[in-house]
Amino acid sequence: MKASQFFVSTLKEAPADAEVVSHKLMMRAGMIKRIGAGIYNYMPMGLRVIRKVEAIIREEMTRAGAVELLMPVVQPAELWQETGRFDKMGPELMRVKDRHGRDFIIQPTSEEVMTDIARQELRSYKQLPKNFYHIQTKFRDERRPRFGVMRGREFTMKDAYSFDRDVAAATVSYQGMYAAYQRIFDRFGLQYRAVAADTGAIGGEISHEFQVIADTGEDAIVYCPTSDYAANIELAEGVALATERAAAAQALTKTATPGKSTCEEVAALLALPLAQTVKSLVLATDELNDKGEIIKSTVWLLLLRGDHDLNEVKAGKVDGLKAGFRFATVGEIEDHFGCKPGYLGPINLIKPVKVIADRTVAMMSDFVCGANQVDYHFTGANWGRDLPEPDLIADLRNVVVGDPSPDGKGVLAIQRGIEVGHVFLLGTKYSADMKATFLDENGKPQLMVMGCYGIGVTRILGAAIEQSHDERGIIWPDAIAPFSVVVCPIGMDRSEEVKAAAHKLHDDLQALGIDVLLDDRGERPGAMFADWELIGVPHRVVISDRGLKEGQVEYQGRRDAEASKLALVDVLAHLKGKLKP
Amino acid sequence: MKASQFFVSTLKEAPADAEVVSHKLMMRAGMIKRIGAGIYNYMPMGLRVIRKVEAIIREEMTRAGAVELLMPVVQPAELWQETGRFDKMGPELMRVKDRHGRDFIIQPTSEEVMTDIARQELRSYKQLPKNFYHIQTKFRDERRPRFGVMRGREFTMKDAYSFDRDVAAATVSYQGMYAAYQRIFDRFGLQYRAVAADTGAIGGEISHEFQVIADTGEDAIVYCPTSDYAANIELAEGVALATERAAAAQALTKTATPGKSTCEEVAALLALPLAQTVKSLVLATDELNDKGEIIKSTVWLLLLRGDHDLNEVKAGKVDGLKAGFRFATVGEIEDHFGCKPGYLGPINLIKPVKVIADRTVAMMSDFVCGANQVDYHFTGANWGRDLPEPDLIADLRNVVVGDPSPDGKGVLAIQRGIEVGHVFLLGTKYSADMKATFLDENGKPQLMVMGCYGIGVTRILGAAIEQSHDERGIIWPDAIAPFSVVVCPIGMDRSEEVKAAAHKLHDDLQALGIDVLLDDRGERPGAMFADWELIGVPHRVVISDRGLKEGQVEYQGRRDAEASKLALVDVLAHLKGKLKP
Repeated sequence: MKASQFFVSTLKEAPADAEVVSHKLMMRAGMIKRIGAGIYNYMPMGLRVIRKVEAIIREEMTRAGAVELLMPVVQPAELWQETGRFDKMGPELMRVKDRHGRDFIIQPTSEEVMTDIARQELRSYKQLPKNFYHIQTKFRDERRPRFGVMRGREFTMKDAYSFDRDVAAATVSYQGMYAAYQRIFDRFGLQYRAVAADTGAIGGEISHEFQVIADTGEDAIVYCPTSDYAANIELAEGVALATERAAAAQALTKTATPGKSTCEEVAALLALPLAQTVKSLVLATDELNDKGEIIKSTVWLLLLRGDHDLNEVKAGKVDGLKAGFRFATVGEIEDHFGCKPGYLGPINLIKPVKVIADRTVAMMSDFVCGANQVDYHFTGANWGRDLPEPDLIADLRNVVVGDPSPDGKGVLAIQRGIEVGHVFLLGTKYSADMKATFLDENGKPQLMVMGCYGIGVTRILGAAIEQSHDERGIIWPDAIAPFSVVVCPIGMDRSEEVKAAAHKLHDDLQALGIDVLLDDRGERPGAMFADWELIGVPHRVVISDRGLKEGQVEYQGRRDAEASKLALVDVLAHLKGKLKP
Repeated sequence: MKASQFFVSTLKEAPADAEVVSHKLMMRAGMIKRIGAGIYNYMPMGLRVIRKVEAIIREEMTRAGAVELLMPVVQPAELWQETGRFDKMGPELMRVKDRHGRDFIIQPTSEEVMTDIARQELRSYKQLPKNFYHIQTKFRDERRPRFGVMRGREFTMKDAYSFDRDVAAATVSYQGMYAAYQRIFDRFGLQYRAVAADTGAIGGEISHEFQVIADTGEDAIVYCPTSDYAANIELAEGVALATERAAAAQALTKTATPGKSTCEEVAALLALPLAQTVKSLVLATDELNDKGEIIKSTVWLLLLRGDHDLNEVKAGKVDGLKAGFRFATVGEIEDHFGCKPGYLGPINLIKPVKVIADRTVAMMSDFVCGANQVDYHFTGANWGRDLPEPDLIADLRNVVVGDPSPDGKGVLAIQRGIEVGHVFLLGTKYSADMKATFLDENGKPQLMVMGCYGIGVTRILGAAIEQSHDERGIIWPDAIAPFSVVVCPIGMDRSEEVKAAAHKLHDDLQALGIDVLLDDRGERPGAMFADWELIGVPHRVVISDRGLKEGQVEYQGRRDAEASKLALVDVLAHLKGKLKP
């Protein structure tokens, strides 16, 4: 490809609304162009990356036995009403009426349409397992679209759906997709981690996220460097930091802590380690009548160590809180504790409250907690002696760096990541709602067991850039770079030799199947180099008159600090070596 | 590819709502699956054809210097308001509001977004010419979606847009796209014709349609077998069928024609050729005031030979009718002619009426026309003697087979066609509305001159099938068949030899880059052959135990009446020869 037949458009400055580095660099490198909030044109340079990402996904999905089809962007509401998602999903589901007033949605994903196909097409156990996927435009009307392609409204997603006869078979399908995802992300050339994830609102049995490692990632991913353990922070298990309680050594003492309402302030005042304090969080659950009116509320006191944070996903899995909870109101708190927030604790409750202690808190002795009296805390509190044993003990907290790994094989570390893939063993959630059954060997209808598997195609671009860039611009991995090699001739308009050598190198590389661009725009060297460093092409060859006189060209890898000289005759072999898969 | 890793799903009967053969066959062959009116899933078998169509388009667009990008499906209304199309377009433009109540449209095409990109990106004459295209999902909310992919609501279209400094340069771009389209349709292996077309509502300077020839096509395309002349029926010029009037030979005679209100009936009654009769059509035009109220209506009498049909597009180009016309009401007709429809004519008008004669009518003598009296016609009518010369003479009619070609090089023939491509020299229609200018050599802003170029990707499938099928199913051209070759082993479960030979042939063909499918489903021969004839794979090789004993396989081309025997060792060479581009 020659630049004159392509479209290269770079910007010195990123637009003011670009907040994160990938968004800034994609705008500056002419990869995307904003057309509305969270809606972008994929410009020629960006589209090349998308196409390479898609090609790798297609190859590996095919290798894994998945079959490609294409489901529509505009989907009839009827199918979404069968699963209830037409009503249950919030405004991020874009709803639209046709000229006859019939309801449609712009697909954010395709479980319903896929299940509709499966219940018509997959009638016998002999047709299972089956895995279908498509790569298609999706729309989610995000409340606050931002970060360019990282949280856009319109985006491209690969979504696959597997259908199996039972959970055991579905687990095999799931593992096949997990392995395919590993191959896909390996081939992208990205640093990533597959982490166990909560199945959350989608439900289902097992789930893993594929997270591209980047300091700027929104997600915290937990792993054990000395074992295979990896989970996202929502799921990562916090074990008790002590296996048994130390004997009580202090007397329970009410201590004045005037104006000190946080554990940090109290620990500082009392010159105690923060890990000696316990914080009190008050939740409430409501019982509703048929009309949706609250008929009874229950107040819950959750206890965490002062240096630990509540994990709401875990709290939502505790018996009694599973149907949903909220933070208690100040009125409810004062009613149950006789005290305003900031000085609450599990001792001397004036009304019945369910006490749930985090595993670590349940093993603490001589701890500090609020005295349910403004400006006072207790020190030397001990379970059994000063207060009853907790009603429940549960894993309530986010793990922190240095926690023991739940597999017992080391200690946990935490990285930031960007979720770009997600695999789900769904079970029969959708097949039950939509009556997607097959006939088993005995001619009996059975619900199909499903899995679903997504990759955010356009998001990969942002994640790759967040992971790999420098002050000059993007640094693409070879496999998904818009071009693998750029040939930069200097003074092509003045020198026939440079022109001939540049074209020959371009043609030779192209003949080898190497994705090369010849920059024949006639830009000055500085501007030309800056453009390609910004765009992030991994390999650059500079051809100049002076070099040619010595039979040499200049090669520079995008990550190299300096250029190196290469004999012209060696360039092809050199690049072939560099680009070997 | 092996059938067991793919998805083959055929139907014995087409669903009742499938009206045309392509729709029926695509449903039966498992290429598409209906999800709502005019909305289809493209099943794996159909998607393979789409991908081949897209690949050919991409290659030829690149060869022609066009650059691919991707514009969004959901587009902000603001851009469509700049050109007025947001309001002007009817309900086929799908409109949708986001969660904030902002207006968006689901793209039916992308002139506005493209022009928005161009006005930002193409700032200097040095950047021109430029041609961008994308292949993207489109939505048009058709009033009556039908015929499967032929008139669906959601479909895939390739749309390209060229930007030039002036009309001369834009004409070169246009010709380049015209040539690219010829290569594309040649490569598809379809019989097609590029015909001059009316620029109609989109406006612009020149336009050609690419029509796939099929007896079932909705469009009539006119061509001259002995010259290059080709146009669609809307545009094809009707020349006067006589160069001068014969002298009047008959007296004007009022003749009773009781109950005979059509030219056919009158000609039959009077035993005269239909070509001696003239039919009267009454139109009206309205002048409106600022409030859109009619302040004045004018009545027009259009005269066509009895065997000719009105061409409304041509009528719309006549001075006085350009701003729009309608058929006159019975009230208006009786008011101006003193007679009800069926007996109208240009003689003895009781109120002023503008008379427009078709070119052929203007050259007629001794003709028959209505007498403006119920149950009476005139015979022997002659211009100048019995009625004044017409106010206007114009080309008003559809040409018919045997008409002289307007280029004087033969006579016209008519075929049916299916429009699958359209090239338009748009001029400055969009660039003027959206102020898309570039700076010329003198630093002066100039409007870009645009062209737009569409191919209905999914429609190609329907058109190809309408053109080429038989009672057994689809007959794909090699280039866009879902698979080029199908290998059908007979009794693979019983014979290791058959199994080994079938797999080897499959692997060998695949290694040659030939798109082969091995049918390892274990279907019985009859069902297996019927499936592949229905699906339309162009080349079939049958491997059986009996054949292998003689070192032979059976080959049958999809168009061949019978299978022929081939030595196993010759199969590869035979198929390579057949599939040579």
